[in-house]
Amino acid sequence: MSGRASPRNDQARQPTSYDVAQAAGVSQSAVSRCFRPGGSIAPETRARVLKAARELGYQPNAIASGLKAKRSNLVAVLISNLTNLYYPEVLAGLSRRLNASDNRVLLFALETEDEVDAALDQVWRYRVDGAIVAARLQAAQLRAFQRHRVPVVLYNRLSDGPDPVPSVACDSPGGERMLVDRLLAGGHRRFGLICGPEDNTVGRSRVEAARARLGAAGLTPAVTGGSFDHDSGAQGFRRLMTQSGNALDAVICANDLMAIGAIDAAREVYGLDVPRDVSVVGFDGVGPAAWASYRLTTVRQPVDRMTEAAVSMLLERVADPELPPEVRTFAGKLVPGGSARLG
Amino acid sequence: MSGRASPRNDQARQPTSYDVAQAAGVSQSAVSRCFRPGGSIAPETRARVLKAARELGYQPNAIASGLKAKRSNLVAVLISNLTNLYYPEVLAGLSRRLNASDNRVLLFALETEDEVDAALDQVWRYRVDGAIVAARLQAAQLRAFQRHRVPVVLYNRLSDGPDPVPSVACDSPGGERMLVDRLLAGGHRRFGLICGPEDNTVGRSRVEAARARLGAAGLTPAVTGGSFDHDSGAQGFRRLMTQSGNALDAVICANDLMAIGAIDAAREVYGLDVPRDVSVVGFDGVGPAAWASYRLTTVRQPVDRMTEAAVSMLLERVADPELPPEVRTFAGKLVPGGSARLG
Repeated sequence: MSGRASPRNDQARQPTSYDVAQAAGVSQSAVSRCFRPGGSIAPETRARVLKAARELGYQPNAIASGLKAKRSNLVAVLISNLTNLYYPEVLAGLSRRLNASDNRVLLFALETEDEVDAALDQVWRYRVDGAIVAARLQAAQLRAFQRHRVPVVLYNRLSDGPDPVPSVACDSPGGERMLVDRLLAGGHRRFGLICGPEDNTVGRSRVEAARARLGAAGLTPAVTGGSFDHDSGAQGFRRLMTQSGNALDAVICANDLMAIGAIDAAREVYGLDVPRDVSVVGFDGVGPAAWASYRLTTVRQPVDRMTEAAVSMLLERVADPELPPEVRTFAGKLVPGGSARLG
Repeated sequence: MSGRASPRNDQARQPTSYDVAQAAGVSQSAVSRCFRPGGSIAPETRARVLKAARELGYQPNAIASGLKAKRSNLVAVLISNLTNLYYPEVLAGLSRRLNASDNRVLLFALETEDEVDAALDQVWRYRVDGAIVAARLQAAQLRAFQRHRVPVVLYNRLSDGPDPVPSVACDSPGGERMLVDRLLAGGHRRFGLICGPEDNTVGRSRVEAARARLGAAGLTPAVTGGSFDHDSGAQGFRRLMTQSGNALDAVICANDLMAIGAIDAAREVYGLDVPRDVSVVGFDGVGPAAWASYRLTTVRQPVDRMTEAAVSMLLERVADPELPPEVRTFAGKLVPGGSARLG
């Protein structure tokens, strides 16, 4: 259930609380009480309003209702790998948009994903209005959000749980398929893959998608592990060269930072020319990927659109906790760069 | 008044509240009440205790006193240029240390330094225990911290005001002098400087120190502006080449990101070899400076020590608002790298 094209579109055709009141046969103030956290309203009235709202596709104005309601205006942002070059841009975008809507960021910068539980204890304690999580959540942790009635939106994380969770993500598999198809068209046949950390679902989905696409073309790539940083990319490249007997046409890395490390190793350790001797591609579109020394061929995530979507989805759910889960998936953009011979 | 050598040293010779009680002729509990925010104690007793504490150099255990006291355990972190590669490392360090001492980070990621006033309104509103500010504060804004009794520690920012403000900084002038001396010893004579943003005191202090040292050697460098990002470094390098009639021995950049941009421009636009044809140096020691394509000669800031100092200085002042201002300046470490011919 990939979500609505863009927030602008629905604002254009958004029904008003008056429409909902009409359809539900209640007063407009009943509608606004219904959508105001803590607003007092009879259960059956609330049920009628919510039914009408859903049928009409009504979205209350989260910010306006928020200002009327008793709220902490604190939004928890849980983010891991802050020193990974991708997340500072995400955090800056989330922070800018949350502040613009009169919300404050309670930051939890996690070094490892097992720090989530400690962070969540504080999230409950500070009575945040909601949370945006760019770290892996276990099913039990997701249930805790429901139990504490704290709306949550996952950023680039797939949920482990059985139930759908409001999420914003870049279409990693789609992006990898673009890359693989263009590399195949460019005549590459001997592939190597450098994975992300094992507990990282995004990295895994990227590698699995590339692997599947290569498999469909009858190719079996050499595969090695990595940890999303520059050095693990350089080391991964060396392991792939060994595994493949120095016979690699193209190396697909689960993120840009490892791809940059792989390019450095290809040039430094093996004196290879990129892309003449070997093509290297990444994923994310971080700033350094565009630097003249790398001109990385990669898939750029639409971070602006994604952070905008995450914040608006969260504020909608702060105003109306009853909104159904929604997953919004954004296509990445292929940046041809100069580190791969694409067909 | 450059601060104590290292936190470890003073813990070793730190006097106890018992010593203070003895010297002040009061009970030990009076000492602890004196250092507990909101602790009830007679003004003259408080004065005696503080006098004795200052004479003995007594530092209360901020964390322990904090836990006993009524506090929000919220610390505001104001930080600009989050997408500058240096600040994510700083924010991660501050966040890790604040969380470890049971404090939460209320993040204000500023895009421009003129967003400070809006952020401060929120800082007061959320009754934070204190603030760490890596953005420029005007004298009036510093006074507002005093007025609201919110302890503040400046991170790598010099205060505009007349009064000293608790600050942690890297010795930028000292670092630049190291670089200039080694470049002079390496035989460079025709220098170019790429500055940081005009309103950035740190960037200015770096450029002024380099300029003064060169002036003392009878040299007048070509100077051009920059904005701390990669592209402004590349553009700055081109302007310097024009200004100097393509006669540059060495380019000194106010930060690493601009130095990396300058190296890319030297290679790409002019086909120069770095450092054979031109030496390029930066400042900060960010991750990419060490990448094989750059091996930047730079001065590395001791971010771990600096963030540790900022957090401990702040928590000391949360526990004892009467502590006198203190400026702790840390020397940077010259990283020879491979982008400059040092003597």
